[in-house]
Amino acid sequence: MMQRIITLLTDFSEKDGYPASMKGVILSINPNVKIVDITHEIPSHDIKEAAFVLKSTYNYFPRGTIHIAIVDPEVGSKRKPILVETENYYFICPDNGILSYVLLEEKIRKIIWINNKQYFLKKISNTFHGRDIFAPVGAYLSKGIKVEKFGKKINKIVKFNIKYPKEKNNYLIGDVIHIDKFGNIITNITREKFYAFTKNKEFEIKINRKIIRKISNSYKDVQKGELLAIFGSSEFLEISIREGNAFKLYGKPKILVKITSN
Amino acid sequence: MMQRIITLLTDFSEKDGYPASMKGVILSINPNVKIVDITHEIPSHDIKEAAFVLKSTYNYFPRGTIHIAIVDPEVGSKRKPILVETENYYFICPDNGILSYVLLEEKIRKIIWINNKQYFLKKISNTFHGRDIFAPVGAYLSKGIKVEKFGKKINKIVKFNIKYPKEKNNYLIGDVIHIDKFGNIITNITREKFYAFTKNKEFEIKINRKIIRKISNSYKDVQKGELLAIFGSSEFLEISIREGNAFKLYGKPKILVKITSN
Amino acid sequence: MMQRIITLLTDFSEKDGYPASMKGVILSINPNVKIVDITHEIPSHDIKEAAFVLKSTYNYFPRGTIHIAIVDPEVGSKRKPILVETENYYFICPDNGILSYVLLEEKIRKIIWINNKQYFLKKISNTFHGRDIFAPVGAYLSKGIKVEKFGKKINKIVKFNIKYPKEKNNYLIGDVIHIDKFGNIITNITREKFYAFTKNKEFEIKINRKIIRKISNSYKDVQKGELLAIFGSSEFLEISIREGNAFKLYGKPKILVKITSN
Repeated sequence: MMQRIITLLTDFSEKDGYPASMKGVILSINPNVKIVDITHEIPSHDIKEAAFVLKSTYNYFPRGTIHIAIVDPEVGSKRKPILVETENYYFICPDNGILSYVLLEEKIRKIIWINNKQYFLKKISNTFHGRDIFAPVGAYLSKGIKVEKFGKKINKIVKFNIKYPKEKNNYLIGDVIHIDKFGNIITNITREKFYAFTKNKEFEIKINRKIIRKISNSYKDVQKGELLAIFGSSEFLEISIREGNAFKLYGKPKILVKITSN
Repeated sequence: MMQRIITLLTDFSEKDGYPASMKGVILSINPNVKIVDITHEIPSHDIKEAAFVLKSTYNYFPRGTIHIAIVDPEVGSKRKPILVETENYYFICPDNGILSYVLLEEKIRKIIWINNKQYFLKKISNTFHGRDIFAPVGAYLSKGIKVEKFGKKINKIVKFNIKYPKEKNNYLIGDVIHIDKFGNIITNITREKFYAFTKNKEFEIKINRKIIRKISNSYKDVQKGELLAIFGSSEFLEISIREGNAFKLYGKPKILVKITSN
Repeated sequence: MMQRIITLLTDFSEKDGYPASMKGVILSINPNVKIVDITHEIPSHDIKEAAFVLKSTYNYFPRGTIHIAIVDPEVGSKRKPILVETENYYFICPDNGILSYVLLEEKIRKIIWINNKQYFLKKISNTFHGRDIFAPVGAYLSKGIKVEKFGKKINKIVKFNIKYPKEKNNYLIGDVIHIDKFGNIITNITREKFYAFTKNKEFEIKINRKIIRKISNSYKDVQKGELLAIFGSSEFLEISIREGNAFKLYGKPKILVKITSN
């Protein structure tokens, strides 16, 4: 049988050993599973960031991968732990919107409200359901336990509102949805949306007082230290500085796109 | 045969590739072992921190797991490298107190002063015994080499003094033992100790000038930004701010608990 | 068959999930490979740092390990993706000098300019060849695809100039090549070079205005907080402070060695 994969995405950081406890729990239940960290460096309590990073990564994993995603500021309260089976993956997470981006792409098959304590650790803490509930449920799922066994089928799932770019006064107005490690400013304007708006005409992209008039194909299209616009690895328009940090100079600006030719 | 697990806990950080060298050494000796990072983000030279994080994580791993724990400011000196077999686990570490917390819970079977160079790398550096001694010893142990083969049985092990909460002038006085990634202030007051002192009576917990009068069961019991007291994932009393960082506001205060009713 | 190892060394950091996407791609192609992170914390765009960390780690891994090393400021441009087979390892990286240190030690067998799109992801982004080209090529290589299949054999490879210590006015003058996590100042003076220069005579090592007159064998040779010189884990002369941070006090100084006896 192929080795199952469990991924972990959290805001726990590595330093206190929280992700390691989860791994210990998982391997105690299923020693044959492969665990891959997506990241544990989501800013504390930032569900939207987690949702974005999950969206950027989950579908590079093999079908059937179990994604455990935990940013859980309401741990210990009545917010539901859920298991979502989609056409291609399994997601185990608190029901707090963390799947909002993923569910734009993935078709839900089943949502289970995880409440069968048989698959939890015996002692459930108030503050660390990652270790006590989500990890063991993921591990049992990876061993072939049926989705329905973990709890009650439900029909609803929490989602947050996703901000899309808007057209207003001849402008396409985009927002920043993510800043990456390099300081690249990732906007919510997709390549598709951009070209649907600009229609092969000349355009300008305004970031604060700076104007960019072309889309680069490589950072090397501009000089070192110069600003550019490029479609990034998730097909969103990104504002970058070649070998520099655009975020440090521009923060999280509005992105204004305007057609300049006829 | 079941795949053995080796965990790594160090103050090396990832950035220079030090943990990676250890992994390379381990996999060169035993390609079938499973390596799990506990953390490499222990503050440099902080043996107590390492001891605490090890204690919080080690027993979530399957019996027989080999824990390599290295915070080793005296590397290259005469401090002993040791291998400790307890009833459930193996620990490989410098003999400097790093097992002080673990040994409150785990019963020692054998302590070996590791000195059999047969199981070291051929060339031993002065500064990186993690790579040159601890990693290969862990790898050979995971292959089934008997504990006694690695060196000389000894009877003593270095431990540091653990600070316990004290009762004084009607107060239970606790200390901070750890600050986690979220800024949660983890005290040395266990749930057991707390209730043995408060005996179901009304109480107050003083942190600097702030007073908390109840134990929360979830961060959601208070408003965002509000202070709370909760028993955390290791059963210690923790002082937290809902979706905030208690450490940033309160530092490492004394924790004073007092009974207020009769 | 033995499980193949793929290592990853990048400047991506973990936070955005970039290394995780690479792992997902690799495991989708070869679920049986073992992936080991060397580090993802190389400073952005710093090819020399990457080259140094790769040199410090690569040869602790088993022969046949596939090292994927990506610091790639010119991603998307015409810089070549290459696959280098040496006598002991495989390296997959942009052709930008990242192998400069490794190739002092490893003998090249073949250099392949990777251009066979059959082994790429179907959709190649402009900004993330780690995921779209390097990861899948590594995964296919780990499955046994022949090196020649990935592209065109070439004879040249980009290298940067490595700074060696110089002798001038009776001084051996060294430079800092790396600062590690502990603030250890790692110089380019090897043990061999040092003793070839000092020839068992008395010497002094000048760092700014400080003078060190001996080589320590352990940090414990000096008092806490005191400066020392020691040969580190890669056989380079290192300037350290016992349980302190030498870099914070001394920065990246010139290192001057002088013979003081006859």
